[in-house]
Amino acid sequence: ISKIVKSFINDVVLNLRINSYTKMIKNMNQSKLKEGLIQVYTGNGKGKTTAALGLALRAIGHDLKVIIIQFMKGSKNYGEVKAINKYLPQIKIEQYGLTSFVDKNNPSKKDIELAQNGLKRARRAIFSQLYDIVILDEINVAMDFNLISVEDILQLIEDKPPSVELVLTGRYVPEKIIEKADLVSEVKEIKHWFKKGVDTRKGIEY
Amino acid sequence: ISKIVKSFINDVVLNLRINSYTKMIKNMNQSKLKEGLIQVYTGNGKGKTTAALGLALRAIGHDLKVIIIQFMKGSKNYGEVKAINKYLPQIKIEQYGLTSFVDKNNPSKKDIELAQNGLKRARRAIFSQLYDIVILDEINVAMDFNLISVEDILQLIEDKPPSVELVLTGRYVPEKIIEKADLVSEVKEIKHWFKKGVDTRKGIEY
Repeated sequence: ISKIVKSFINDVVLNLRINSYTKMIKNMNQSKLKEGLIQVYTGNGKGKTTAALGLALRAIGHDLKVIIIQFMKGSKNYGEVKAINKYLPQIKIEQYGLTSFVDKNNPSKKDIELAQNGLKRARRAIFSQLYDIVILDEINVAMDFNLISVEDILQLIEDKPPSVELVLTGRYVPEKIIEKADLVSEVKEIKHWFKKGVDTRKGIEY
Repeated sequence: ISKIVKSFINDVVLNLRINSYTKMIKNMNQSKLKEGLIQVYTGNGKGKTTAALGLALRAIGHDLKVIIIQFMKGSKNYGEVKAINKYLPQIKIEQYGLTSFVDKNNPSKKDIELAQNGLKRARRAIFSQLYDIVILDEINVAMDFNLISVEDILQLIEDKPPSVELVLTGRYVPEKIIEKADLVSEVKEIKHWFKKGVDTRKGIEY
């Protein structure tokens, strides 16, 4: 009989543990995304990076956690970097690039190394459970410039936990990524002031 | 002689005043836009409002002043409204709409009245000298729904002081506005999860 009682008690304790664990997970996920998807902002028009930034701003309004990993960008003089670091500690923004432009036909060793570091950081962020939304800014260009392989990003999408939203920006997104994405917005340039001879303006373009 | 001395002193004082005034104006404008332009984000894809929000975030990083006037939106439950009101007092966000949807074929008196109030607010904001960037969110839809006339917006563009950047968002932008705009980005829907049956998600869609 003592054996049966022991087994019964074990069952009760196990069930209590499961219930409390389920409840904890449920509470943890209360302000989190139940279904994290893949968003892509591509095309030749202005508005891709800003769309991702606006998404981050909207998300923190509902207490989601966001990390922005910028590829091929290294300047701290971007308005978004300054604003986030100054006013929004709940958004993390990191840069994995040089301040100079990457030569598409002949990227430097450093360009490749930094992009690869960014990719590693992206993997860590995605699995860290710390972020609801992971934004990989200009990652599409990094793939187009062969700093990062398309296969590595497909693998990242494949491995992603269901609760994490992944946002990829930049022109020239590969067709294979479009196939795997849940949302793709193409920002088309209908008109751009560059053609009128207007300079790049602080606070608008960067 | 005393008359000549007096006039000389007057001249010196006047010049000092002018110099100091010029310097003040120069300093005032240091972080402002020399050439404010017209930006339009339109199209059927996701990313128009968020592109404008991201633009606002970038701009405050360089100490520009921003106001966002939302048309046909009345809910305080938008992530952007919550985030801005909570963390970014340097951005002003105001809503001129009901929480319910507007019936395109039969907009209510209240819908029209609120949109017209929004337009008046937009005019005041543009001439107030308080803002470098004025964002009129969903104004294109308000025009399409005949809550606001295209002529009124063309007039607004015509009257705008050179230092103010004006940003118009929403699908169905009228052709006449495109003609007057300096930048037009069309956000095209290539893929959208709505078609997959994914619900509107808090922190992502609103």
